[in-house]
Amino acid sequence: MIQAGIVGGSGYTGVELLRLLAQHPAVRVSCITSRAESGKRVAEVFPNLRGHVDLCFVSPDLAALAACDVVFFATPNGTAMTMVPGLLGAGVRVIDLSADFRLKDPGLWRQWYGAEHAAPELLTEAAYGLPEWYRAAIRQARLVANPGCYPTAVTLGLAPLLAEGLVREDSLIADAKSGLSGAGRKAAVATLLAEASDSLKAYGVPGHRHHPEIVQNLRGIAASAHLDLVFVPHLTPMVRGIHATLYAELRQPDADLQAVFAQRYADEPFVDVMPPGSHPETRSVRGVNQCRIAVHRPSGGRRVVVLSVIDNLVKGAAGQAIQNMNIMLGLDETAGLTGIGLLP
Amino acid sequence: MIQAGIVGGSGYTGVELLRLLAQHPAVRVSCITSRAESGKRVAEVFPNLRGHVDLCFVSPDLAALAACDVVFFATPNGTAMTMVPGLLGAGVRVIDLSADFRLKDPGLWRQWYGAEHAAPELLTEAAYGLPEWYRAAIRQARLVANPGCYPTAVTLGLAPLLAEGLVREDSLIADAKSGLSGAGRKAAVATLLAEASDSLKAYGVPGHRHHPEIVQNLRGIAASAHLDLVFVPHLTPMVRGIHATLYAELRQPDADLQAVFAQRYADEPFVDVMPPGSHPETRSVRGVNQCRIAVHRPSGGRRVVVLSVIDNLVKGAAGQAIQNMNIMLGLDETAGLTGIGLLP
Amino acid sequence: MIQAGIVGGSGYTGVELLRLLAQHPAVRVSCITSRAESGKRVAEVFPNLRGHVDLCFVSPDLAALAACDVVFFATPNGTAMTMVPGLLGAGVRVIDLSADFRLKDPGLWRQWYGAEHAAPELLTEAAYGLPEWYRAAIRQARLVANPGCYPTAVTLGLAPLLAEGLVREDSLIADAKSGLSGAGRKAAVATLLAEASDSLKAYGVPGHRHHPEIVQNLRGIAASAHLDLVFVPHLTPMVRGIHATLYAELRQPDADLQAVFAQRYADEPFVDVMPPGSHPETRSVRGVNQCRIAVHRPSGGRRVVVLSVIDNLVKGAAGQAIQNMNIMLGLDETAGLTGIGLLP
Amino acid sequence: MIQAGIVGGSGYTGVELLRLLAQHPAVRVSCITSRAESGKRVAEVFPNLRGHVDLCFVSPDLAALAACDVVFFATPNGTAMTMVPGLLGAGVRVIDLSADFRLKDPGLWRQWYGAEHAAPELLTEAAYGLPEWYRAAIRQARLVANPGCYPTAVTLGLAPLLAEGLVREDSLIADAKSGLSGAGRKAAVATLLAEASDSLKAYGVPGHRHHPEIVQNLRGIAASAHLDLVFVPHLTPMVRGIHATLYAELRQPDADLQAVFAQRYADEPFVDVMPPGSHPETRSVRGVNQCRIAVHRPSGGRRVVVLSVIDNLVKGAAGQAIQNMNIMLGLDETAGLTGIGLLP
Repeated sequence: MIQAGIVGGSGYTGVELLRLLAQHPAVRVSCITSRAESGKRVAEVFPNLRGHVDLCFVSPDLAALAACDVVFFATPNGTAMTMVPGLLGAGVRVIDLSADFRLKDPGLWRQWYGAEHAAPELLTEAAYGLPEWYRAAIRQARLVANPGCYPTAVTLGLAPLLAEGLVREDSLIADAKSGLSGAGRKAAVATLLAEASDSLKAYGVPGHRHHPEIVQNLRGIAASAHLDLVFVPHLTPMVRGIHATLYAELRQPDADLQAVFAQRYADEPFVDVMPPGSHPETRSVRGVNQCRIAVHRPSGGRRVVVLSVIDNLVKGAAGQAIQNMNIMLGLDETAGLTGIGLLP
Repeated sequence: MIQAGIVGGSGYTGVELLRLLAQHPAVRVSCITSRAESGKRVAEVFPNLRGHVDLCFVSPDLAALAACDVVFFATPNGTAMTMVPGLLGAGVRVIDLSADFRLKDPGLWRQWYGAEHAAPELLTEAAYGLPEWYRAAIRQARLVANPGCYPTAVTLGLAPLLAEGLVREDSLIADAKSGLSGAGRKAAVATLLAEASDSLKAYGVPGHRHHPEIVQNLRGIAASAHLDLVFVPHLTPMVRGIHATLYAELRQPDADLQAVFAQRYADEPFVDVMPPGSHPETRSVRGVNQCRIAVHRPSGGRRVVVLSVIDNLVKGAAGQAIQNMNIMLGLDETAGLTGIGLLP
Repeated sequence: MIQAGIVGGSGYTGVELLRLLAQHPAVRVSCITSRAESGKRVAEVFPNLRGHVDLCFVSPDLAALAACDVVFFATPNGTAMTMVPGLLGAGVRVIDLSADFRLKDPGLWRQWYGAEHAAPELLTEAAYGLPEWYRAAIRQARLVANPGCYPTAVTLGLAPLLAEGLVREDSLIADAKSGLSGAGRKAAVATLLAEASDSLKAYGVPGHRHHPEIVQNLRGIAASAHLDLVFVPHLTPMVRGIHATLYAELRQPDADLQAVFAQRYADEPFVDVMPPGSHPETRSVRGVNQCRIAVHRPSGGRRVVVLSVIDNLVKGAAGQAIQNMNIMLGLDETAGLTGIGLLP
Repeated sequence: MIQAGIVGGSGYTGVELLRLLAQHPAVRVSCITSRAESGKRVAEVFPNLRGHVDLCFVSPDLAALAACDVVFFATPNGTAMTMVPGLLGAGVRVIDLSADFRLKDPGLWRQWYGAEHAAPELLTEAAYGLPEWYRAAIRQARLVANPGCYPTAVTLGLAPLLAEGLVREDSLIADAKSGLSGAGRKAAVATLLAEASDSLKAYGVPGHRHHPEIVQNLRGIAASAHLDLVFVPHLTPMVRGIHATLYAELRQPDADLQAVFAQRYADEPFVDVMPPGSHPETRSVRGVNQCRIAVHRPSGGRRVVVLSVIDNLVKGAAGQAIQNMNIMLGLDETAGLTGIGLLP
């Protein structure tokens, strides 16, 4: 069995990695760290894991982690970049679910994350872990930067149009709606049920850290420097799910948009292009590593609308991380990821 | 006291009219009809009204309604147009909360509502009941077409930009999110809690009845035939509230957008232009006749984002109807509408 | 106008006092304190108050408070008891919404609140602010201990049965379900939407601070030392509302229970005894100072089931506090409390 | 592979059977019927099944069903009893998830379900499908009556106490809280999100069909004719989950209650007795065939409180049905039921 470690496992990404890896046929989690919960049984913090996970949280311990074949970082931004070089040096593969290795430009990283990057030399090496667009690089990688949740939903939805040159690169809009688990498992007033329930609001309109990440992705795919994206995230009163509603102006109004998407993702196990006229629901991907996409041209006009839904904790985080691990380690890409969404 | 009647009072618009009118200083509801609930006490159907409303539902009765000073229609589309001519003939003022008199073009009405209009001669006469833009006409009107909920939020948010010629008329996008009360109080599978809770989806992307209504409004204000709007409504797991996120391309990037909104709505009691950088929450208007608006220019770019929130049952329906009634009858426009939103 | 002060106004009880007092015909809030939000506009923290409340939070200031006619404490437990003696000395009436003056026995207070009481001499003087049972004492009081939310719902539901000696005092069970606003507006993991939504759990089964308060009430009313109550509170995924389901064994199975409740509360403006066979919903009292009660004897058996619902922030906190203020100051008991619940 | 059929598969029990059976190692669903959805692809009605289930709904067809090894009825009450005799005659094993074969007494069935039973001769033969208490009978059975959701949670929680004679049989109270999926996937006003969200209410206090079923179970286990149970179900604003809070008077206050439960369920794969002092959350069993139980004796008194949680659609319906199928067919009892609950 492959030995996996998890750093920073007491958040939602941590519990989701444990839920999925506990059912993975080829991997065993041998070490999970958490400063806050050190010494506590994992199943005491996450009672859904009772009877399935028999580990205790330990304090971060480089030696124990270095003995793993692969280590997942589910830490706040700024932690992985200090520990990754040591683990890579010990021959461990690393998948970082935080933002530390997502941006290629250390100056951009400093601007958005407010600190000097601790391992800028690894920014170029790190593979961006969106398999549908960067599978070859992931296969070769020692270090994978697992994408943000919004960037996953938005990039999968807009990239086929940009790759084919079908839309004006300066006309992009991503109106994204997220459930509250995206804000993480940390004490806060704004995400209390009594604050966030039965209400909806936009946030981060003046600027959000996922904006440069999405732009980096789309610029690479469009090979255009003039790409311009307006990105507006919203907090929605649900636990899981991202719904990205994507808008662009068509350059070629007569293109068969449905065919473009269907062909681009025909062989992808985790992207489901829905039939024409569909409206995917976030609940249809609850708990699974799946992106569902529908493409519309309202009134047959000159603008395209793409609807893209994921579970932010699975295809937007832990599931995609395991998909990347499978690719890095030469396993079946779908291993451990064949569950069915919970509906209702 | 002014005598008011309500036709079709067993839905959410009906209970909301009753809640608000029961606290109106100058009006008394003397008649409320419902085929389905005829004979039943109103407070039995709506227990929040126990101790406040002592009426029983009756079957629709033209004589009783004709004795009222003002009649509200809270009926499904297609009912008001058959009864309104008679009531107007009897000298009654009518405020129709359904869609029967919103569109000026009977051909468009037929196209979207699937039937011949029964009183096309009244379409031109009916005043469109958005006081912030059509107050003078409402003041003179015998018949007011109360706007749809989405059209209220979207028009209030985009109209100032169009009136000033600040944005390209063919660049408009309205991404709107609604609570489930917008779907009405009728038995249905899609709006069950077990279906719609903890999930989000777009609907009606190929076409929605509020699209022609919004376009009619905006074309009138922009005085442009080339206006083009993409409108995507979404079902959101909350009871009340609409959040419209509005996008347009600026024609004059150096305009002081905040000032444009602040000045346009300075004297409006029910439109609140929030400080720069704000993100209004739908819950801040829960239960009240208020629209809160914030305007953003992300990254100082050439596109504008307007955030506009209302309670779909109040400023989007019953509250606005009472505001229209106050204007029609020469009462203080805010009478009965001075409540404070319920938060949390 | 009567001048009111609020200490600790940045929580849910604070915003609710402000919402209700802003519409009170005879009272004006002249001072509101909050250490955490000092200097900030109240309407910035609570946007529903924009346009209605023009105050800023100030640091606690005894002089400013002493200039008020009445002061509400909406502070965490342990604060009011240090400040109340000074205010009473200055001739101010005090209504304490915290638990500081609810228990008559300082030993019991120490046991449940983990500290010595700072003003034990006031415990006997303080009137317990449940007007339906202690109105005469409240009318005379300088200091009112506003009841806890659970004790309000449970006491109103069980007291008529105990006062008439209709049930065995050692057979009482209160199974209570509360919305999350009862946990307050403070950063915490357990009450995040992502933790508490779409789930339900009991808590505090081994012991909850409201248990001795309820027992004190019921012992007083039953005049029995053998009274025994099992109290199990539950966290329910909703914002507002308490539903207490109360069980007891009947001593006299042939009593007309409906009549007992109807007569006891016939003249009470804020207790609504529902018709036989009713099942009150918490939403029917959303936002209002109302308790709705239904009484059942399942299968005509020897046990009684009472269903009692309140809004925990209104009849369970701020609304009841204003009701107490009205009584203390000789105002109409319903002044400022005549709103109608928001449904849906 | 074992061939399974599902009758009435377009409800929540149907989709849940499909989700679980699609992952079962030894079973293939070969036929699923639905009058309403006949001809439609299953994955069109339930998009979570896209890519996993390739069936279409067909009209009920006895020949196709008779070719199955096992048939599940997920029909409304009153349907299975007309079709089961034919299927049993054809040698098919039947698991009925409706209420048709739960009550042993045809007179009681008539009283609660309002019709003559169509196959009273099978009532005695049918095994009651609660494996933890009736495994031997299930192993021999041709026909299993799958328990109701409330009866599962309540019986598992009270039975150990009654089996040991630890509590007074006439002191039982079951206060149960259910999510809305328990009301089924059928058009209705009362279970709309806009009606049932952010609210809680009891229902069926005068009488509920699960009451006689629970009493039948408990009388059998207690071997007492004097057993008396008060049962109050509540509608809670969540999708899945039942939380039963159970009360009884102890006959032997010094019994080691924790040990009684731990020993009784020590070998049960799907009942998890939590450590002393626990408060199980319904979300900890979301999507899985698990009952979690905690036992309390508040204040060390003479009454016991048992907290019992299940997912009403899994251990309360489809999961338990598959557990029964595994037992009937001699498969590993946990086959297809080893998933981990979704949290958050």
